[in-house]
Amino acid sequence: MGKNETPTKSNSERPVSIKIDERDNVAIAIHSEGLQAGCRLDDGTRAIDHVPQGHKVALADLAEGDPIIRYGEVIGYAAEAIARGRWIDEARVHLPPAMPLEEMVRGDRPVPDLQPLDGFTFEGFLNADGTVGTKNILGIATSVQCVAAVADYAVRRIKQELLPRYPHVDDVVSLTHAYGCGVAIDAPEAIIPIRTLQNLAANPNLGGEVLVLGLGCEKLKPQRLLPLSNPAETTIIELQDEHLHGFDAMVSAILEAAEKKLIRLNQRRRQLCPASDLRVGLQCGGSDAFSGITANPAVGFAADLMVRAGATVVFSEVTEVRDAVHLLIPRTGNEAVAKALTREMAWYDRYLKIGGVDRSANTTPGNKAGGLANIVEKALGSIVKSGTSPLVDVLGPGERLRTNGLVFAATPASDFVCGTLQLAAGITLQVFTTGRGTPYGLAMAPVIKVSTRSSLKRRWHDLIDLDASPIATGDGSIADVGWELFQLILDIASGRKTTAADRLGLHNDLILFNPAPIT
Amino acid sequence: MGKNETPTKSNSERPVSIKIDERDNVAIAIHSEGLQAGCRLDDGTRAIDHVPQGHKVALADLAEGDPIIRYGEVIGYAAEAIARGRWIDEARVHLPPAMPLEEMVRGDRPVPDLQPLDGFTFEGFLNADGTVGTKNILGIATSVQCVAAVADYAVRRIKQELLPRYPHVDDVVSLTHAYGCGVAIDAPEAIIPIRTLQNLAANPNLGGEVLVLGLGCEKLKPQRLLPLSNPAETTIIELQDEHLHGFDAMVSAILEAAEKKLIRLNQRRRQLCPASDLRVGLQCGGSDAFSGITANPAVGFAADLMVRAGATVVFSEVTEVRDAVHLLIPRTGNEAVAKALTREMAWYDRYLKIGGVDRSANTTPGNKAGGLANIVEKALGSIVKSGTSPLVDVLGPGERLRTNGLVFAATPASDFVCGTLQLAAGITLQVFTTGRGTPYGLAMAPVIKVSTRSSLKRRWHDLIDLDASPIATGDGSIADVGWELFQLILDIASGRKTTAADRLGLHNDLILFNPAPIT
Repeated sequence: MGKNETPTKSNSERPVSIKIDERDNVAIAIHSEGLQAGCRLDDGTRAIDHVPQGHKVALADLAEGDPIIRYGEVIGYAAEAIARGRWIDEARVHLPPAMPLEEMVRGDRPVPDLQPLDGFTFEGFLNADGTVGTKNILGIATSVQCVAAVADYAVRRIKQELLPRYPHVDDVVSLTHAYGCGVAIDAPEAIIPIRTLQNLAANPNLGGEVLVLGLGCEKLKPQRLLPLSNPAETTIIELQDEHLHGFDAMVSAILEAAEKKLIRLNQRRRQLCPASDLRVGLQCGGSDAFSGITANPAVGFAADLMVRAGATVVFSEVTEVRDAVHLLIPRTGNEAVAKALTREMAWYDRYLKIGGVDRSANTTPGNKAGGLANIVEKALGSIVKSGTSPLVDVLGPGERLRTNGLVFAATPASDFVCGTLQLAAGITLQVFTTGRGTPYGLAMAPVIKVSTRSSLKRRWHDLIDLDASPIATGDGSIADVGWELFQLILDIASGRKTTAADRLGLHNDLILFNPAPIT
Repeated sequence: MGKNETPTKSNSERPVSIKIDERDNVAIAIHSEGLQAGCRLDDGTRAIDHVPQGHKVALADLAEGDPIIRYGEVIGYAAEAIARGRWIDEARVHLPPAMPLEEMVRGDRPVPDLQPLDGFTFEGFLNADGTVGTKNILGIATSVQCVAAVADYAVRRIKQELLPRYPHVDDVVSLTHAYGCGVAIDAPEAIIPIRTLQNLAANPNLGGEVLVLGLGCEKLKPQRLLPLSNPAETTIIELQDEHLHGFDAMVSAILEAAEKKLIRLNQRRRQLCPASDLRVGLQCGGSDAFSGITANPAVGFAADLMVRAGATVVFSEVTEVRDAVHLLIPRTGNEAVAKALTREMAWYDRYLKIGGVDRSANTTPGNKAGGLANIVEKALGSIVKSGTSPLVDVLGPGERLRTNGLVFAATPASDFVCGTLQLAAGITLQVFTTGRGTPYGLAMAPVIKVSTRSSLKRRWHDLIDLDASPIATGDGSIADVGWELFQLILDIASGRKTTAADRLGLHNDLILFNPAPIT
């Protein structure tokens, strides 16, 4: 149980609902059978309706227009009179207007730093530029989709014919994508996909030894993908090269260049590194009402541990931060960070408006079925992942990390786009919380999947790495699960344990964020 | 040689340059060594500079601001005085303003129909809805990127374990993509990716037997992907289904459903069909100055043959039609088609403007190196693919074919996006012309790659299916190569011959056109 969470118990002393904050006028049904109509909660409320698991029950009589409060914050207004004990279905909640960004002030309270945490280490691959990888991967970057099929073909051959001879190399990954040509490469927003591709090639898990595959006539010249940190170690092969006579010659050239890289990568060994060399991305997907009660608070606890240990922790998902950003602004380390945060929110407000939509475009049918009424409730549960430490930097989409500590990397909330942009930021491991369940994974970094409820962990026994549901049932505290996750991060970053996604080889595609036109 | 093309010859009687239209004041250097400075063309022009292959030489003295004329059309204005015999580099050509769409009139001349062409057939797979496939593919459609890795895993297993037992099924293809969740699904333009996915699942090469793989909580419900033509034959599997306990159970469920489809698909046989059942898409990529001289005119000739035989021919690429649309408007079959064509052009003008760019965003470095100065010159050479028949219909991006004859399907010019949208339109075979060379291919339909110059065919001997270069050298006419292509289309549509891309298994990803925001 979290320190602020009050479970209510039925007569049998088994908690059946959970109230997060003292000020809340709703509680959440804990168990898979939900709350039965007629059952009595600890505060005396008697359920009038059946309330499905993860959904909200009213703890007070609400008049039409009354605020509905969860996490101590207004998540919406009653669309009709709601009697105490009724199920608060999403249709009974009016979405409040977005808080105006210009009214948010940082204040001048100093943000307290957390107590340092010493002595934690992991075994990683130290790179020439000082970054540390959690894997030792040969990356084949590509400048354009035109070469994707050749890249994939070559990777299959490299894995079959070469990789077995280089046992200290973990994997060979082609960085294929939809960009590179047929795009407005000089459009103002084209900087986003371009720097994303540049920074993906520089991800620490690729060891600065990237091979770049290009076509020759594309708009995005392969030379632009050279990792800035280590250009001398990068090889470019262009399929239109006059010396490459036919497909076999192309593949031979790629295999030959790949083997040179494999020889170098194979000489590397894991070495003991302080936990401060970790770069961990946080994300949630397929969220439900438990995300903000179990998995995300546990991740927030682990995030604080990592920040205390000096590591870099990245959270993202603009549309799931927008409606809780007033809680983050006071945590920014200085005025410049606060301004950068509101700048990214404003950029996205505008981007959605140009497309004829607004923030209500977030929340999925699955979110709603899982008990999340709207984007405000989702956002409040989402930012819990960030823990309590000061926010020290804000990155635009596709930008690269430049400091340790807690960082907000502006990305869409789309799982696969966020994952791709966090890899570009330079994360070497990701923690992903899910309530509904998704087989999500990334080829370039391990993804630890944390379930919000036990039913998912039982059903997806081989796809979920850690279950945070004991927090809701009272069988474990946020601190317990948070420490367990922190230890698991160190184990997986060290190669001592393997994630479900890596064990099964389930890796999503790299999906770029391209707000610029295609031509 | 085309009827309007005048090759100029050097003293050795070997043509060294080609002039397309009587009105042109430029000619194109034919051979790989280009035009040597000092060499004399047939019309008396003496080359002052070395003119690279595919590039333009001035046939008259031009003052600054004079029109530069190719294909009998103004492709730009001289940026400086250009003496007769000089190389007209792209820097010497000012882009003319875009022609205002509202000033284009169709006129009331009747568009002459071409003479019917009878007696041509191919052997295809007849579907229940009357369409005819050129392949017999088991398609696994997906509603969201979340399931892409599971779909790909399942397809590998199906190909290894099941497909060998069903020899009359050509392939198993997963239709994975970047859409489905984390998107503004109610945005006005979201209709484009949604109908694209719906219509991809209905492509005739999938035989109406699609298996749909979904997650369960995504915004794009898998039910929306049921092919309208044959919903009863479609099976949906959702990974979040409560009966699927873990990854192995998911894969088993997919394999079991796939086998039922394979049994049905395996009973199908090719049967003789009239050529009017063909649906052929036309595209060019990696274009050069020869595209408009050799490959595209040959394709245009073949397009006329197909239309005369009653088939459906689709051309696309809005940004490569925009600057030549005044030549297409008079070819529209009626006023409604003319209006639809200008509507699609106007939509794209606006789309580019919102993104802060204009039509000059098309043309790639490779186009320019290949001698194409700008988008006007590229567009004039591009629309040659459409032949001379009346334009009978215009589709918006992702819409499905509804008539035989010559159809314009509005798509971006991006090779992989255009290919995906033409598959959604329902093409069952594509003809792709290329000057610079690309290993492009589609998993769902055969792609015949036609080279514009012999050097590419020699170098990429195993990647190019047909070489159109004899048209430039005078070794073959447009009609010769056009007929050869027409016959090749019938052979490949019948499964008698195989394209290079299919032989090597080179297939690009499906890349959707999503002008709506992601969230």
